[in-house]
Amino acid sequence: MPIYHAPTKDLGFVLHEVLKIHEQDIPGYDELDADTTAAILEEAGKLSENVLAPLNPVGDRQGCVLENGVVRTPEGFKDAYEQMRAGGWMGLDADPEYGGQGMPYVLNCAVGEMFVSSNMAFNMYQGLTHGAYSAIHAHGSDAQKQTYLPNMIDGIWSGTMNLTEPHCGTDLGLIRTKAEPQDDGSYSITGSKIWISAGEHDLSENIIHLVLAKAPGGGEGTKGISLFIVPKFLVNEDGSLGARNAVSCGGLEEKMGIHGNATCVMNYDGARGFLVGEIHKGMRAMFTMMNEARLGVGLQGYAQGAVAYQNALGFAKDRLQGRDVTGTQNPDGPADPIIVHPDVRRNLMAQKSFVEGARAFVLWGAQMIDRAHRKEDADAEGMISLLTPVIKGFLTDKGFETTVLAQQTLGGSGFTREWGLEQFVRDARITMIYEGTNGVQALDLVGRKLAQSGGKHVMAFFDMVKSFIAEHKGKDEALDRDFLDPLKAASKDLQSAGMFFMQNGMKTPNAALSGSYDFMHLFGHVCLGLMWSKMAVASRAALDAGTSDTEFHAAKLATGRYYMARELPATGTHLRRIESGADPVMELDAAQF
Amino acid sequence: MPIYHAPTKDLGFVLHEVLKIHEQDIPGYDELDADTTAAILEEAGKLSENVLAPLNPVGDRQGCVLENGVVRTPEGFKDAYEQMRAGGWMGLDADPEYGGQGMPYVLNCAVGEMFVSSNMAFNMYQGLTHGAYSAIHAHGSDAQKQTYLPNMIDGIWSGTMNLTEPHCGTDLGLIRTKAEPQDDGSYSITGSKIWISAGEHDLSENIIHLVLAKAPGGGEGTKGISLFIVPKFLVNEDGSLGARNAVSCGGLEEKMGIHGNATCVMNYDGARGFLVGEIHKGMRAMFTMMNEARLGVGLQGYAQGAVAYQNALGFAKDRLQGRDVTGTQNPDGPADPIIVHPDVRRNLMAQKSFVEGARAFVLWGAQMIDRAHRKEDADAEGMISLLTPVIKGFLTDKGFETTVLAQQTLGGSGFTREWGLEQFVRDARITMIYEGTNGVQALDLVGRKLAQSGGKHVMAFFDMVKSFIAEHKGKDEALDRDFLDPLKAASKDLQSAGMFFMQNGMKTPNAALSGSYDFMHLFGHVCLGLMWSKMAVASRAALDAGTSDTEFHAAKLATGRYYMARELPATGTHLRRIESGADPVMELDAAQF
Repeated sequence: MPIYHAPTKDLGFVLHEVLKIHEQDIPGYDELDADTTAAILEEAGKLSENVLAPLNPVGDRQGCVLENGVVRTPEGFKDAYEQMRAGGWMGLDADPEYGGQGMPYVLNCAVGEMFVSSNMAFNMYQGLTHGAYSAIHAHGSDAQKQTYLPNMIDGIWSGTMNLTEPHCGTDLGLIRTKAEPQDDGSYSITGSKIWISAGEHDLSENIIHLVLAKAPGGGEGTKGISLFIVPKFLVNEDGSLGARNAVSCGGLEEKMGIHGNATCVMNYDGARGFLVGEIHKGMRAMFTMMNEARLGVGLQGYAQGAVAYQNALGFAKDRLQGRDVTGTQNPDGPADPIIVHPDVRRNLMAQKSFVEGARAFVLWGAQMIDRAHRKEDADAEGMISLLTPVIKGFLTDKGFETTVLAQQTLGGSGFTREWGLEQFVRDARITMIYEGTNGVQALDLVGRKLAQSGGKHVMAFFDMVKSFIAEHKGKDEALDRDFLDPLKAASKDLQSAGMFFMQNGMKTPNAALSGSYDFMHLFGHVCLGLMWSKMAVASRAALDAGTSDTEFHAAKLATGRYYMARELPATGTHLRRIESGADPVMELDAAQF
Repeated sequence: MPIYHAPTKDLGFVLHEVLKIHEQDIPGYDELDADTTAAILEEAGKLSENVLAPLNPVGDRQGCVLENGVVRTPEGFKDAYEQMRAGGWMGLDADPEYGGQGMPYVLNCAVGEMFVSSNMAFNMYQGLTHGAYSAIHAHGSDAQKQTYLPNMIDGIWSGTMNLTEPHCGTDLGLIRTKAEPQDDGSYSITGSKIWISAGEHDLSENIIHLVLAKAPGGGEGTKGISLFIVPKFLVNEDGSLGARNAVSCGGLEEKMGIHGNATCVMNYDGARGFLVGEIHKGMRAMFTMMNEARLGVGLQGYAQGAVAYQNALGFAKDRLQGRDVTGTQNPDGPADPIIVHPDVRRNLMAQKSFVEGARAFVLWGAQMIDRAHRKEDADAEGMISLLTPVIKGFLTDKGFETTVLAQQTLGGSGFTREWGLEQFVRDARITMIYEGTNGVQALDLVGRKLAQSGGKHVMAFFDMVKSFIAEHKGKDEALDRDFLDPLKAASKDLQSAGMFFMQNGMKTPNAALSGSYDFMHLFGHVCLGLMWSKMAVASRAALDAGTSDTEFHAAKLATGRYYMARELPATGTHLRRIESGADPVMELDAAQF
């Protein structure tokens, strides 16, 4: 069975030594002193290690079962769910006005990594509730908030997001689900939605579905879409559960992974629904939650990589095969542990340097979201809006890749069920697809975000990298050589790519769009290069200040050096691919394929 | 359900227009005129499309079942197996002296691609038999050949390869299975083997196990290993089946994919075994089959990519989402097919250009094996020996990657069972692991093959590329610019990497070994660049000669241009990674991870 160790120390390092959250002037961050976060991370870590991780293979094997319209989750999920509720974890960052704990989002993400690493399929139930909570919180009426949020924050009710239909996913303008206005101000919702995660299950007493549908008079395409609350059980005026609504689970999807989460076909047969926010402005309501939701999926990607890496590392230290070419390391054993072999290390370093870099990137991004929301900082909002597709697309691609690398470390054992690596691969795979495929993320980045506000945000990104380099340059030769110089070079590749788009994209949109995916990856590498440089500065400072924990910080610097020397050079290839333009990609007629 | 179209036309193009097999001075190739191969490919294609492909998802869902020591294969496998036997496919390239058809190996590979694409798990049963056949054919006594080969070629008996034990896979020197000499000249074999593909099943009347074991007096490590035939049923002097041997299936592995193939724990409890070849020279006997076996796994890798690509392409032409940014393509529909979107095309071109390049590479390699075997050409033997780890490692990594790309083309549908893409991903994953993990391939390439015969073979490779360029250079500006120049640049990167190893590897072996994986990929890209250049020359020639099939050849050139412009530049990043040396990889102590 796979292992899991909560990385509380490394999370603490990023929060307090790299991001220095306790020094940030963001409302609520003053509560986040190192002792408080350590205590919270410790508790969440225990829950992850002891309760969630052991259930992960159980959920995978048993999956969910639909019988007579009721979905049964795997054995033990209900108990674990109750423990999550009892611990108050579901409302950690929720609005205190409705019973939440009001902690910053950055802390929610640090905790979330451990929940996702230990059991991604399970954690999706509360993850979807969180998404539905956010939508109602941002766009619902006061009455709706009072009616739904307290129970959703508590977890006694859960939530879902209903977007996709059989004939449309990315292109939501094509949806057919109808909302007919009723005399009492409610709507009658009719249609079929697919791929609804946590659409039906036995963990909560009620399920609050958020549903995109078309109400009359909205016009064609996405303009005609509105957002509705459709509760599984209608809620009486006194808050008690009323009649069963006309919404039902029509089937469960058989899929590659996340078997512990019920992926449902949801049928709405004249179900009673309640408009959220303005009529025909449903897409806008969805979009406001997107940064958070997409950062959450990026987190899932690297969190699967994180747990996979731990298992690969354990195996590499235990498994005895062959001898170190530079001299026997384990003379009393029949062979040396495979971690002595350079190619096994290359593989482990790739995993480790990605996971730790991604952890910093996501927490840095979460802090930016806090800054945007809690300080209403438009620059922070612009920056995170720009980087959201990078966080989602790059971290899920690389997170999946990391699970595959980890699986490879185990050789044949990696292919067997028993060792659990193959589950991490199968579970991680969905993160590249849902919440907008990574191709759509790349399109969002290059087609929308780059040019937003006249390119202001991307310029701000380059300025940020530049001032970071300027601030730290020239103080430490090794830091310059190993971190700041490679970061500068990579950032220059990114600027060249942006320049190519500017010069060619207006005339030939396909010249930019053909390079969008490479641009997303190039951008991701620069961001991780920046994160590694930030961590190097922090660890260098700790060592210079005479920290007793020299091993931790020395390892951090060495891991960073690996990333800068071995992973960051990928920017060069991405740039060359981008600069080859649209022709190689677009030349063939569809019929010629 | 997934589709499959046998790529007979493209196979014919590679065989006759690119490799021009009918013009090669290799014994047996004179029979391979275009009509003959077309007829054979056509028949194999029909079998693949109509019989094997429909069984592929069945095998995945049902898997194999072990009851009372007997393994039941999925429904329909037995019938399909009988059709394969009846068609004579199992002995296509086997020795006519024992009932085979004696066709060249290159044809076997062309046919094999279709069998593997349509049903990899099923095809492994005969694939393993072929491996065991080759071992006995190369190293067995005349009596052993007479006893076993005819029935194995027929398929009425099958075969296996037994190497791995629970505590050792890569490091076979550690095996514990014992062979005790008996008075009658046979051996008593005792031990446990794991991950034995097709170890037990209901498709054949007898199973001929080839088992590595240690006989007394052989010394430590791999030197003490011998190879034995251990039949499931002993064979009487008249060739009829005798007593059941003391070998049994102790369990089936639960694994990520290839569920239709039985992966067995095999227990040998004093089973009667018969020495193959010389005592204590078992490893050598295994190694002589390795080029073929590893090329076969490389073929599996790209063959899974090939069928995955077909399904991605079909989806991309059918699925309507969004509009072409350059202008609506499907005005009568609600949206355009997604193949209009640049990022979808980038994805499809990556798949297509890899699959077609890999197809050429494998058939080129198979032809090299024919040249080595049928002409006893030592240079060909040296060349294929050098390139075998590249074919295995690069094509399986990229083949797997291709299935993941294809899955991505389908968005959410790619994650569901129904569409079948996720099975191709799961099945392809094993190819990176078995027959020597890809890390071991890289080690073999850099640690052994590069320096073999004083570096003669790698020099011959560079000469081959150089003379190819010299032969075709300066005749066609577009050919030079799009193919020969990029090939030259990539080849230069490969040479620089080799130079780095030469200059650093002797003093610091880890400096070479830390770059071995990147070198394998760099080498693979140069090989595919060479193959695409060869195909470009062939298609250019066909167009210049006024072929009526202009679409096919124009598409070939465009696909090649994509590969050269977008995939080949990866060599630059691989070189930079290699040149960063051992430090970034080896710096951390094992304890610091």
